[in-house]
Amino acid sequence: MTTQLTEEDTSIHEHIHDYIGELRQRAEGIEILEPGTGTTRYSHDAATAKTAASSGNPGPAVVLPTTAAEVQAAVKLAAELGVTVVPRGAGTGLSGGATAHMDQIVISTEKLTRIVEVSPLDEVAVVEPGVINADLNRHLEPFGLFYAPDPASFDISSIGGNIATNAGGLRCAKYGVTRESVLSLDVVLPNGSLITVGHRSIKGVTGLDLTSLFVGSEGILGIVTKATVRLRPIPVARKTVTAFFNSTAEGAEGLAAITLSPVRPAAIEFFDTPSLANIDAHSGTALRERGAALILIEIDGYGIGDQAAHLATALSAAGGRVTVESDDDAVQLWELRRSGRGLPQDKWYIGEDIAVPKSQLPKVYAAFPALEARFGVEISAVSHAGDGNLHPLITKDKTPDDGANPPASLTDAATELVKVALSLGGTVTGEHGVGTIKREWAALELSERSRDVQHAIKAAIDPQQLLNPGKAI
Amino acid sequence: MTTQLTEEDTSIHEHIHDYIGELRQRAEGIEILEPGTGTTRYSHDAATAKTAASSGNPGPAVVLPTTAAEVQAAVKLAAELGVTVVPRGAGTGLSGGATAHMDQIVISTEKLTRIVEVSPLDEVAVVEPGVINADLNRHLEPFGLFYAPDPASFDISSIGGNIATNAGGLRCAKYGVTRESVLSLDVVLPNGSLITVGHRSIKGVTGLDLTSLFVGSEGILGIVTKATVRLRPIPVARKTVTAFFNSTAEGAEGLAAITLSPVRPAAIEFFDTPSLANIDAHSGTALRERGAALILIEIDGYGIGDQAAHLATALSAAGGRVTVESDDDAVQLWELRRSGRGLPQDKWYIGEDIAVPKSQLPKVYAAFPALEARFGVEISAVSHAGDGNLHPLITKDKTPDDGANPPASLTDAATELVKVALSLGGTVTGEHGVGTIKREWAALELSERSRDVQHAIKAAIDPQQLLNPGKAI
Repeated sequence: MTTQLTEEDTSIHEHIHDYIGELRQRAEGIEILEPGTGTTRYSHDAATAKTAASSGNPGPAVVLPTTAAEVQAAVKLAAELGVTVVPRGAGTGLSGGATAHMDQIVISTEKLTRIVEVSPLDEVAVVEPGVINADLNRHLEPFGLFYAPDPASFDISSIGGNIATNAGGLRCAKYGVTRESVLSLDVVLPNGSLITVGHRSIKGVTGLDLTSLFVGSEGILGIVTKATVRLRPIPVARKTVTAFFNSTAEGAEGLAAITLSPVRPAAIEFFDTPSLANIDAHSGTALRERGAALILIEIDGYGIGDQAAHLATALSAAGGRVTVESDDDAVQLWELRRSGRGLPQDKWYIGEDIAVPKSQLPKVYAAFPALEARFGVEISAVSHAGDGNLHPLITKDKTPDDGANPPASLTDAATELVKVALSLGGTVTGEHGVGTIKREWAALELSERSRDVQHAIKAAIDPQQLLNPGKAI
Repeated sequence: MTTQLTEEDTSIHEHIHDYIGELRQRAEGIEILEPGTGTTRYSHDAATAKTAASSGNPGPAVVLPTTAAEVQAAVKLAAELGVTVVPRGAGTGLSGGATAHMDQIVISTEKLTRIVEVSPLDEVAVVEPGVINADLNRHLEPFGLFYAPDPASFDISSIGGNIATNAGGLRCAKYGVTRESVLSLDVVLPNGSLITVGHRSIKGVTGLDLTSLFVGSEGILGIVTKATVRLRPIPVARKTVTAFFNSTAEGAEGLAAITLSPVRPAAIEFFDTPSLANIDAHSGTALRERGAALILIEIDGYGIGDQAAHLATALSAAGGRVTVESDDDAVQLWELRRSGRGLPQDKWYIGEDIAVPKSQLPKVYAAFPALEARFGVEISAVSHAGDGNLHPLITKDKTPDDGANPPASLTDAATELVKVALSLGGTVTGEHGVGTIKREWAALELSERSRDVQHAIKAAIDPQQLLNPGKAI
């Protein structure tokens, strides 16, 4: 969908002022930003930032609790006054899930930043939601442990936001997405009460799995105030293996060689020809000299030499030119992958997040040329190939005739691409979430019955429809 | 709790006869067992089998669908007539979750046994719920793949039942429980409609995670008619390592050495002194000659020699006598673990399923002697130590004065043991489910608010309370 905002309501609402006044009385010392006092950025997330910045929107009221009790007080009052609430993490989302309007209040967890505990013997950390993903991992390193989910935004995104979106990342090919690393949550419900779901024990099947339900619920069911997450030992070794191919199609087909091998790498990233060219153009690298498509692999753990040898055999047989990279080259390659270099600053662009069953990746890449011709756009994609999750980038040159928003051909091409993913048994969002931006697409994916069940669950937990209305489902 | 059944209603109900007659008309050829025609075993699961066998209960009406459409027809009619439904897999559950009464109908998925598809390139299998766990793995072996969740009952339990209970097993220390291996489900809802939840793609975050909600829901939300499950490559190597210790306490403390090492074994099973003695007594082995406690480990994958060496170093430092077992000895040791040999046929016994954070395992074992003295029972436990899940066996000698049911001291001891687990941050059921037997304990574990949320979700999906009433929550 487009990143276009509807016409903005920029007035400051009376009932929001009432809410702020009352909350200040009830929760002494609670930090509140009044609408328009530097709150513009809270009206949007990373998906809509550009458009919003130029909208003149003063921004909503923002509550910045530092304790779970303050979150409870803020939510409870909102329920009493019927004010709708937008929960917010670090605001790095890419689906508009934290978009807020002037008649709403934002409750941001950015100041709940305590790492409460690290237990090497239980292999868990207890953290507040505002802890930045990378900060947690820096904190864990001396313990010889790491927290596996690593969205590309890990340097700036928070654990709370990662939980709300069930964030993926590069290493989930081996270690699973955020859901697989969350054991227990403290959650403030829409009525302001606080519940603990899940267990510090790794296993536990008492009752329905509310933990999994809250993970990925995009702020529509509750606000997480504490999380017990699973940790893993830092692997004894890590090594980067590359395989360059002569074409996007050959490289995409080559991925099957990894699947059919006994090696399960920590990360498997696939770059098509235009993605490599983009990186070279913006970073001064010469990846295109090495080939027209790249599978970038991180293996880790024991027997790293055998793992590399088995991969080399499998990928060479598939036509790849395989290299075990030096540590320095490995650092550079992963930095290029993570930094998003190659984003076209001078073009219109939309970044997408489709996922398909692994075997269908080549068919998605093969569908690009026809879409490019039909819509007059260019499409490239880097993929988390280990779990079939593509991030297509659809671009179009800017022209003097363009308006403030991307041309319709761009969003039309994105919609068709999403339909390709669905026709191959895939999904409209692999790891970013539905938010506001992918709601129409979600309706293409989910049956009416499935949506009915989801709405029934939402109504059961949030009968007033107070939390993040208009998002996710 | 006890395995005691309340007084049985053994009459055949008129409304059940009406149901059967009408269903035969609507779904031509559907297989139905009328109450009392060999249906006694359908009134109970493995937890209550012994008591039920002697109860004279004729057994409920049983529908044996062979297609999803037949499941839908059976459920839809039940909804129309207000007949409550007990969904049933292979009946191997250990919590009374499939217990059925004469005024209910059982819908068994035991004849939905198709392995619809195996896709090595997508690393998934599509199976019907009646497929036996071990049959699936036999089918997968020629593909070089396996389905990881391996409850001890894998030779007789079905995938559908495994999903309903979110079954664990030995290998979930490394590969996760059933939930981590289920990608998508077809589910017949309480109103008879069928929905597909989840994706064949490994990743996907569109809407609420209904797949995780149905997994482990013990038949109270829907009946699974098809599942897409994740597969993994059979590891390049497997090896069994044992560490014997001089006491239960030393062995339990020794487990920390594994956690603090970088090795993550596929399975870590811990046997205390009486468990080893039990096995020796029943199997003619001489494990007690090797030590008074045993950590039995399976490592797999690459670098198996390095893994074994690191484990040996760590466990030796903790006081263990470490052996890398021959393949023949390994087979025997795992067979002893899995077969449950050591169950006391001549005593009263209760088997439990508590789980605690890993670091707390030694404290649970340390609590046994006081409970034994207080209640006049004997307690031993084998544990899935890799994820803190103990299976305590509480026993008591039979006396001529005993009645038909286990003495209260046995169940009282079990209740106290459960309280110990809860006080250590654990749970009343690690992998067996709540069913009927653990409902009172679940109330000790879950807060009233958490139960309210669970009941609200149940009511949202099953407003008539038709599916498996009185179970799980």
